[in-house]
Amino acid sequence: MPKKQNTTAIKKRNIIVGQSGGPTSAINSSLAGVYKTAKERGFHTIYGMLNGVQGLMDEQYVDLSTQIHSDMDIEVLKRTPSAFLGSCRYKLPEIHENPEIYEKIFCILDKLEIEAFIYIGGNDSMDTIKKLFDYAIVKGHKQKFLGVPKTIDNDLALTDHTPGFGSAAKYIATSTKEIIRDALGFSYRNKTISILEIMGRNAGWLTGATALARTEECDGPDLIYLPEITFDIDKFLENVKEMQETRDAVVIAVSEGIKLADGRYVCELSGGGEYVDAFGHKQLQGTAAYLAGFLGAKLGCKTRSIEFSTLQRSASHMASRVDINEAFMVGGAAVKAADEGDSGKMIVIDRIADDPYMSSAGVYDVHRIANNEKLVPREWVNEEGNYITDEFINYIEPLIQGDYPPFMVNGLPQHLVLNR
Amino acid sequence: MPKKQNTTAIKKRNIIVGQSGGPTSAINSSLAGVYKTAKERGFHTIYGMLNGVQGLMDEQYVDLSTQIHSDMDIEVLKRTPSAFLGSCRYKLPEIHENPEIYEKIFCILDKLEIEAFIYIGGNDSMDTIKKLFDYAIVKGHKQKFLGVPKTIDNDLALTDHTPGFGSAAKYIATSTKEIIRDALGFSYRNKTISILEIMGRNAGWLTGATALARTEECDGPDLIYLPEITFDIDKFLENVKEMQETRDAVVIAVSEGIKLADGRYVCELSGGGEYVDAFGHKQLQGTAAYLAGFLGAKLGCKTRSIEFSTLQRSASHMASRVDINEAFMVGGAAVKAADEGDSGKMIVIDRIADDPYMSSAGVYDVHRIANNEKLVPREWVNEEGNYITDEFINYIEPLIQGDYPPFMVNGLPQHLVLNR
Repeated sequence: MPKKQNTTAIKKRNIIVGQSGGPTSAINSSLAGVYKTAKERGFHTIYGMLNGVQGLMDEQYVDLSTQIHSDMDIEVLKRTPSAFLGSCRYKLPEIHENPEIYEKIFCILDKLEIEAFIYIGGNDSMDTIKKLFDYAIVKGHKQKFLGVPKTIDNDLALTDHTPGFGSAAKYIATSTKEIIRDALGFSYRNKTISILEIMGRNAGWLTGATALARTEECDGPDLIYLPEITFDIDKFLENVKEMQETRDAVVIAVSEGIKLADGRYVCELSGGGEYVDAFGHKQLQGTAAYLAGFLGAKLGCKTRSIEFSTLQRSASHMASRVDINEAFMVGGAAVKAADEGDSGKMIVIDRIADDPYMSSAGVYDVHRIANNEKLVPREWVNEEGNYITDEFINYIEPLIQGDYPPFMVNGLPQHLVLNR
Repeated sequence: MPKKQNTTAIKKRNIIVGQSGGPTSAINSSLAGVYKTAKERGFHTIYGMLNGVQGLMDEQYVDLSTQIHSDMDIEVLKRTPSAFLGSCRYKLPEIHENPEIYEKIFCILDKLEIEAFIYIGGNDSMDTIKKLFDYAIVKGHKQKFLGVPKTIDNDLALTDHTPGFGSAAKYIATSTKEIIRDALGFSYRNKTISILEIMGRNAGWLTGATALARTEECDGPDLIYLPEITFDIDKFLENVKEMQETRDAVVIAVSEGIKLADGRYVCELSGGGEYVDAFGHKQLQGTAAYLAGFLGAKLGCKTRSIEFSTLQRSASHMASRVDINEAFMVGGAAVKAADEGDSGKMIVIDRIADDPYMSSAGVYDVHRIANNEKLVPREWVNEEGNYITDEFINYIEPLIQGDYPPFMVNGLPQHLVLNR
């Protein structure tokens, strides 16, 4: 054993990091945290795999020191949305199904003298960490495998919340406030209904975040429908009619993933929702448009559907400082964990206190995490199923605090982009 | 004559201001400019008509000093989107068609001892100023009528550009940059097409603003289609195919108002575009969604449509400092003009210089302005009709410079709202 350790000690200590799954405003801050901490901890070469493991298998990677030249570059990277290294939606097969793929990946890792493999992503990416760790254990490979959470959807179990969620929530709440002002500006003798469509296939965290717009000077949205609650279109119509009795401009937030009792997505009623991605997820779009048409026909008033679309995951210009800092922290914590010998783990965010808000990074076994979706608890939705409770607000409010304003160049936010 | 002037001099010098037409991020900065300048010039009571002339006819107005208590309030107002006083889309009838309406309005103005009437709005609002001025001349009323331009569409003639346009352009360019990053993050072995739908029924100024995203570190959108150019769907398909030969993620900007050679809006092809507002304008929505479906079917790749929707006119959080300052300037200039005896005029923005950019407020006869739409000149679009030229960029670039960041309270932008 001591002999082997010595051998390791004179080997180059290299590290590789990748990004996977849907983009967020915070995923590059985690990358920055990995890079800065790896440098500080004396790793030799810090590689970035391009387009996740899918690119790695094609030997697509860069030495990150050729991309990030200064602390200023790190700060620009933290303000750059989407995946700097490129992302992928590639799911590793089970080990017994295709061991060749694993052999290929470990061959590349060995060639690059990789000591630690850091993967920033969501549920599906943690599955990658789990499988690579399991394979390494079985085959006696020494690399450490660490996962860094990332998803705007906030649907990862065991972590208090996910990096990327806070910035998406802040953008959504800000935009909701602005849309409400817009709608009210036109409401004189003019009944209008605005329906906002928010991302979240099964989890309503982001849709619920629209309620943050309920502030001292804004009533917030009038009705909120999460995917966790079966959607009843007749009850919906009743809810809206009731709201129209007391206000001219009704603003409604719906999740893209709301479903009828028979299991169909609302967006499927209009013929949408047909695209299926590599993970078998339906791409949902058109829920708000369908409901706007429905209400327009039933109530005869002007309706408008508004989809936040990809902006909710990439609007770095309205990032949350808490979120960007936590994303950086979990990136750094993964390097620290790997450096100290951990493997097969995901970094999580533990909430230490609410007032003042404090959080820290924890380490959990990735086998306990992967593929469990964290949904909004039923008791955080009101009895009617058309709004969220104060507990929900108390949970998310700390996560949108503080700004991380972009560096503006010639009137527009500056981004750090890959130089190939 | 001297006697009459004396009578006027001991009368209260009151002023009334209203907002009309579609909201913008800058219309409240013009209101702030009117208020601050009217106070400085010694006007007694500064009234705000609620929901424009339509509300005025219902005697809906407020004393603005009950709403704006400090210079800080003025600064919050400048950062508040949509119409603080509420807007309307009410078109005055011709004078001979319904003189009673005019009698009613002037009766209210006389009762409130109004000396100047300031109306902030677009083409249709300038029509209101023209008619009220004409009626006042015919009937010998002494009130002054001044128009303050406002529209995100930038389609008013004679003014170099309109307040509200610069902020909308800055939001659109910022969001386009972020969406492009988002699209590129996913483009590995995965052809994608993103289609952005931008407001602008007949004028392509805002759609063209997406080209501002073409910066040192971003290629900008690949194709841009303005409503000024007849849309040829076969040529469009060819353009996209060509783009796909050299890039995996194609990003396309289209105006909501693009039309086929037979005069139909593209959005009408999918059955949309049926709502008609009080001015007979069709409400357009669904252009990008239709084209995304079309390209998906023809090219078999993943497509996504993104509508900026009402956010492009109300996203104060990404306002242009040049725009907010100019909006304030033209509001103040209208008060100054009225105070100095002008009437039947609209304030315009004159561009004094490009480098460094300088502008000033001018005064034009409203009869020369109303109902002429300013379109993008053909020579500012490339020969192919699928991108804009450098002249276009040089024209709009100065208008998005500088930030006017919101005051953040508890993580979200603070707005000033009417206290009734």
